[in-house]
Amino acid sequence: MTERNAPAALMWPGSVALVGASDDPAKTNSRPLRYLRAAGFQGRVYPVNPRRDTVGGERCWPSLAELPEVPDHVYVMTSTEAAIETVAECGRLGVPVATVLASGFGEEGEEGREREARLRAAAGSTRILGPSSLGAINPRSGMLLTANAAFAEADLAPGRVFVASHSGSVIGALVSRGKERGISFAGLVSTGGEADLSLGEICLSTVDDDGIGSYALFMESLQHSDQLARFASAAAERGKPVVVYKLGRSAQGAQLSVSHTGALAGSDEEADAFFRAAAISRVDNLEALIEAPALLERVAPGKGAADFRVGVLTTTGGGAALIVDQLGLRGVHVRAPSAPLRKRIQDLGAPITDSIVMDLTLAGAKHEIVSGTLDALQRSGEFDVVVMVVGSSARFHPELAVRAVIERADGPTPLAAFAVPDAPKALAALGEAGVPAFRTPESIVEAITAAATRPASARIGPGTRPGTDGERRVLDELDSYRLLDKVGIAAQPAVEVVTAEAAQGRVPDGIRYPVAVKVLSAAIAHKTDAGGVVLGVAGDEQLVAAAREIEERVGPAADRLLVTEMAPSGVDALVGYRVSPEAGPLIMVAAGGVMAELYRDSSLRLAPVDLVTAHEMIREVKGLAPVVGYRGSQGDADALARAIVALSTLAESAPSVLEAEVNPLRVYGRGEGATALDALVCVTENN
Amino acid sequence: MTERNAPAALMWPGSVALVGASDDPAKTNSRPLRYLRAAGFQGRVYPVNPRRDTVGGERCWPSLAELPEVPDHVYVMTSTEAAIETVAECGRLGVPVATVLASGFGEEGEEGREREARLRAAAGSTRILGPSSLGAINPRSGMLLTANAAFAEADLAPGRVFVASHSGSVIGALVSRGKERGISFAGLVSTGGEADLSLGEICLSTVDDDGIGSYALFMESLQHSDQLARFASAAAERGKPVVVYKLGRSAQGAQLSVSHTGALAGSDEEADAFFRAAAISRVDNLEALIEAPALLERVAPGKGAADFRVGVLTTTGGGAALIVDQLGLRGVHVRAPSAPLRKRIQDLGAPITDSIVMDLTLAGAKHEIVSGTLDALQRSGEFDVVVMVVGSSARFHPELAVRAVIERADGPTPLAAFAVPDAPKALAALGEAGVPAFRTPESIVEAITAAATRPASARIGPGTRPGTDGERRVLDELDSYRLLDKVGIAAQPAVEVVTAEAAQGRVPDGIRYPVAVKVLSAAIAHKTDAGGVVLGVAGDEQLVAAAREIEERVGPAADRLLVTEMAPSGVDALVGYRVSPEAGPLIMVAAGGVMAELYRDSSLRLAPVDLVTAHEMIREVKGLAPVVGYRGSQGDADALARAIVALSTLAESAPSVLEAEVNPLRVYGRGEGATALDALVCVTENN
Repeated sequence: MTERNAPAALMWPGSVALVGASDDPAKTNSRPLRYLRAAGFQGRVYPVNPRRDTVGGERCWPSLAELPEVPDHVYVMTSTEAAIETVAECGRLGVPVATVLASGFGEEGEEGREREARLRAAAGSTRILGPSSLGAINPRSGMLLTANAAFAEADLAPGRVFVASHSGSVIGALVSRGKERGISFAGLVSTGGEADLSLGEICLSTVDDDGIGSYALFMESLQHSDQLARFASAAAERGKPVVVYKLGRSAQGAQLSVSHTGALAGSDEEADAFFRAAAISRVDNLEALIEAPALLERVAPGKGAADFRVGVLTTTGGGAALIVDQLGLRGVHVRAPSAPLRKRIQDLGAPITDSIVMDLTLAGAKHEIVSGTLDALQRSGEFDVVVMVVGSSARFHPELAVRAVIERADGPTPLAAFAVPDAPKALAALGEAGVPAFRTPESIVEAITAAATRPASARIGPGTRPGTDGERRVLDELDSYRLLDKVGIAAQPAVEVVTAEAAQGRVPDGIRYPVAVKVLSAAIAHKTDAGGVVLGVAGDEQLVAAAREIEERVGPAADRLLVTEMAPSGVDALVGYRVSPEAGPLIMVAAGGVMAELYRDSSLRLAPVDLVTAHEMIREVKGLAPVVGYRGSQGDADALARAIVALSTLAESAPSVLEAEVNPLRVYGRGEGATALDALVCVTENN
Repeated sequence: MTERNAPAALMWPGSVALVGASDDPAKTNSRPLRYLRAAGFQGRVYPVNPRRDTVGGERCWPSLAELPEVPDHVYVMTSTEAAIETVAECGRLGVPVATVLASGFGEEGEEGREREARLRAAAGSTRILGPSSLGAINPRSGMLLTANAAFAEADLAPGRVFVASHSGSVIGALVSRGKERGISFAGLVSTGGEADLSLGEICLSTVDDDGIGSYALFMESLQHSDQLARFASAAAERGKPVVVYKLGRSAQGAQLSVSHTGALAGSDEEADAFFRAAAISRVDNLEALIEAPALLERVAPGKGAADFRVGVLTTTGGGAALIVDQLGLRGVHVRAPSAPLRKRIQDLGAPITDSIVMDLTLAGAKHEIVSGTLDALQRSGEFDVVVMVVGSSARFHPELAVRAVIERADGPTPLAAFAVPDAPKALAALGEAGVPAFRTPESIVEAITAAATRPASARIGPGTRPGTDGERRVLDELDSYRLLDKVGIAAQPAVEVVTAEAAQGRVPDGIRYPVAVKVLSAAIAHKTDAGGVVLGVAGDEQLVAAAREIEERVGPAADRLLVTEMAPSGVDALVGYRVSPEAGPLIMVAAGGVMAELYRDSSLRLAPVDLVTAHEMIREVKGLAPVVGYRGSQGDADALARAIVALSTLAESAPSVLEAEVNPLRVYGRGEGATALDALVCVTENN
């Protein structure tokens, strides 16, 4: 935020005004005053309503201008058009932040977008939260500036998770579900339509708040991702984990694109690539959004799924199996204790066997055995996280295993607890004691997977972010090669020929046959389909014939030809670069040919990437197994990786490029390189 | 069950004996007596323990033989070896059912298996539940014959869902989680080690119990699937839905196999094929196992995902989006109301727009509006299920929307409810009123998907179930062709040649060149790798050369050759048949070539299948798109479908076949058929 005091005014206002406050307790507009009073907010509160002298028994003011001070934060609860007026008044008075409840802006077609533009213009230096914002909540100060019915309960304990959500109603779900199991919040913001303040900018403004340990984001779509990227980098630097639940998108939403890169990478996959680069952990279980942060806050990132060591202690074999099985399917492995550690635990009276799960069923959920075992496991250094699966004692005798877990909450290895039966009291006690506790096997599995795979840092920064507006222009094949050559991607040697001349027998000297003859025109996107390609041309005579053939089939657009040397055999790959308006520059690799498209078999990352990541991407593409090594064959994976890295740097080296696709890039045997056999580059004229 | 009174004795015993009952309330063995008394079981209960005169204040008997009657059901709670003795006594006395708590049998290696064999032998005509069984529970009669700590609560309401579980402790999770939301049970059985009674047989014995409306199964693995198949067929005939949660299996568990069919079809995929044929709905969210049955009981099966019509009414836009989005990803579509229906709803005062979700946010959760809208939706006939997504009113004002849903529980279209906030009381009220109610978006999405895809009948029966024991023998290529020819799968015309003769120039007359020359030996599994294949042999001279080459490369095993006509070009498919010890006969189709294996791109079903299913399978394989029709090419999909059907009937026509694989089956253009270019059949000598 650029305004000096806007961040503070958003979450820590000294004074708030409630414009449009209602005296009727059944009305939404009556809620904020009631909530602020019930929560004991210590700042000044000014109800504003020209039609009332009092609201909720308190003095009501006729307008913002007549208040005894300029309030820090104004909640605008009037109707759509009136809201614009009020925001204009905020701007005139120099109010730092105005939150707008009304809808009817950007989401409602052309008219709505026009209204939103007027709203923004009216605001002047006032920052806007919303429109369609259910408000902002700071449980640490009792600042319940919200119209959300979910805050009707007064007892909102402050916690360490900061929630930012595109949807206001989902906030209610998170708060009530968190409450039942001891998960509390440092702040909650309903970002609404993001006419001004975006989710990323709001979170960034809070990142140095020591009371915030982690972030839980609910996103309807990936937008304003530049600001989100800045926040994610800052959060990762401070070791504050970020978890996101994002609504997916249907197949119909996949963007059309000149190249294959867009079709292969659906926009939800783009969001995945973005989150991955941003070190944001995506979850698919709604409750994992609030349950995972506590675990991520405690487990050191950067380990990687393959090296992550999960220890599982249980008082019920069946319950533990639910977790072990699902973790295995996600590539996260439960490890058995070492033999000496097992011996130590057995000596405590815990009759564990050599199974990977340490099962105390026979010993029961006795407090001293669970406690001693956890202590031994935590001190052993053999695990990155120790999971305690509690059976029916969680429901009936929380003084046994659950108490032991709570007592060991601050031991040297992080703990996570899963209650197999319904055990709300145990979960609440665990949560309040700071033990990451989970209600479903799906959620704990997702959280542990997130902990195992969370990178130590974000690979995303303010960096170069090319614009995607402006006139699009497609380069022809030769110009595409020239551009790619500059970043170090070689094509087969090529000669440009005037079709009419070749058709009349005038063939340039020094062509090394056999060659491919292709029509050279930016206007023809699918050369083969247009009849503009003749392969395996072996000599001058055949070249003349090919020129005539193409001229005849393609017509006037076939005025130029590209003659390229036929390539040796190898494995074909597709390497694509694309600037996504939502996610920024992306790099993709896939296997060449029809099958890659059928299988959607590709690997996508935010660009740029380094060689290590490029090799990781190659390994992710099943159809590129013959390059990595499969059934005796092996290709020049290093050359392919270099091409990926080269294409991924286009945002820096050629910011006008919107899309660039080498399809195929033929990869030869080990040490023999790779060359482009076709390429398509699309630029914007405005960058 | 073969015994006259065993089914009744299992779930509806008139008398039970508790062998090894303990007087110490801390001991597991003390629980059943306490639970039975607390639940008001009306039958006779006999504690048996030679070391005590009384247990829990009741008379205790020294042995089963000294009881005043032969009890219907004996719970054997003694240690492993003593349990065998007790079961032997049950056998001698003619006890119908003995449930064994002790472990230490089949799961513990060779010694355990030997003990289990002794247990079975000792039982005589007594049927065994277990070992490792936590018991059987019938809440309708207070028959809590269980040592499960989860039943310490007395108030177990009877319901309509019957639970059978390999894991006893998971039963505790299901009961307590169900209890919190008004889901009750008609019976619960911990099947344990299945030394005798299997999960399928137990369920089958209850299938005509009118008090049971649906089944929830928890399985650690697919076993005794013949009995499960019989049960599933019977349940489907009676319209009783069956839901299963099955633990998955790691990649290491995939069975090795001579052919590719085994590797392509992992055993968990086999279980999926089995459940699909059996019309058993598999869920991956543990809570869906108890939440889905009520919905499936109300929604008519047989519709199919593409035609299933979901209507969504909500009091909170954000909460509905969670569900719509996830349903879309699973191919189940939310439908908007028709224009006249929308008008009718708007006339009720509900300001819904033309969005697919009917959003009442602006109208609020008013009882009369929700009630009227639900009524209109239910009467419209436009939906197969109407989902009500309830926002914060579910938590704070259940008398509004939640009450309206409860009142409409028996309307003409089934309802399903999802509470966005934590709202245990609302869920319990909904559940008790018979409205399928869901706690998480993941669970309701899974249940609706199950309802949309549930077939109307099971395609699985007692049928032929070939054994898989006995000596395995691999047929050579020619014998494989002969066997396949009998079921109607044609191969390329082939001639057998003695290698030595061909190498010396003696070539049979009438060979239609070009041909493929291949070593003919059952001992050589990978002919090409062994150097035993020469393709495109154009005449007699080349044939002689090929024979010499193969003789030299392969050695003595190359004593015979198969000379087959080269096939025209086409699309290669892999069609495989396999008898799985767990799932029974399976049929698979995949694309031919290396890529199919890399992508695990295959479709698997229980065999036999009909032509409709075969075409469905072909469409499921992405790599077979060129057969179905892709980019202008099209193959003889009918011929491929016929081959699939033919191979799938092997269990009937050739029960000795364990595996049969045609790889590749070359599929020619439309109407031009398909021929096998290679085949591998493996039989067992014992069938």
